[in-house]
Amino acid sequence: MEEQVPGAMGSSASLALRFGQTCFSCASLLFMCLDIEFYSYTTFCFLVTVMGLVIPWSLVLVLVDAYSVFVKSLDLQRRNLLMIIIGDLVLSFLSLAAACSTASVADLLLDVGRSFCPAKLCSRFQLSAAMAFLSWFLSFSSSLFNLWLLPSL
Amino acid sequence: MEEQVPGAMGSSASLALRFGQTCFSCASLLFMCLDIEFYSYTTFCFLVTVMGLVIPWSLVLVLVDAYSVFVKSLDLQRRNLLMIIIGDLVLSFLSLAAACSTASVADLLLDVGRSFCPAKLCSRFQLSAAMAFLSWFLSFSSSLFNLWLLPSL
Repeated sequence: MEEQVPGAMGSSASLALRFGQTCFSCASLLFMCLDIEFYSYTTFCFLVTVMGLVIPWSLVLVLVDAYSVFVKSLDLQRRNLLMIIIGDLVLSFLSLAAACSTASVADLLLDVGRSFCPAKLCSRFQLSAAMAFLSWFLSFSSSLFNLWLLPSL
Repeated sequence: MEEQVPGAMGSSASLALRFGQTCFSCASLLFMCLDIEFYSYTTFCFLVTVMGLVIPWSLVLVLVDAYSVFVKSLDLQRRNLLMIIIGDLVLSFLSLAAACSTASVADLLLDVGRSFCPAKLCSRFQLSAAMAFLSWFLSFSSSLFNLWLLPSL
């Protein structure tokens, strides 16, 4: 039995991280999309696109982790782990970019005037950006944990 | 003589990377600040703050690398390298955030109307965001190269 890095693929901490990613990215998508005309701003379309990539990715990894924790421990290949790390890094950069853009645009809209964005709508954009930030944080930390595991394989 | 990782601290590729970071972050700061009222937008102030952190950091590392390349090869401690990696990662995240925010705000201002931002001004904001993106890319890649070197120390 090899030493387990807490938070690396296949551990229960990783399952919790992936589950958090899925929840936060779904919440971000719902806050942005539900009953709102978001098409008119490029930034918001970018956020929706990125979340549409993050959600299936985290869902698949939640399933893999749940299988590894509850059914049978997986033995990871070095190549697969590298693919997961790179995917996590790319998606975490994209979600950071989307979160920052959304936050700054929501802030600007709130500043510039009520005509573009009633206060209730703007606070929903801000909530969506906050959720995207949390999802970025979780996916970046799980990529770091996996990177920690890499040299031991 | 140990194996050199190209791009890690003390090599000439690293000197080139750091020099690029310094140039691009200075260019971004100048495009944003010179003769422009940027105080009215939170995002632009954030970009200026971040670039004010990135420029001294890259300048110091340019000097260290130049010393190591031209005068005397440094032997790095593991602890110092870890500090450099963490600093690079934090600054690269900050500059990515600033670049994305600036780009999205500039795009929005260009969309919303000429009254907020004449076309010439907006294109300067966009140029500044592009420079910040390049500086992010270089500092992230040098942090990755250093991370590659870390296990061998």
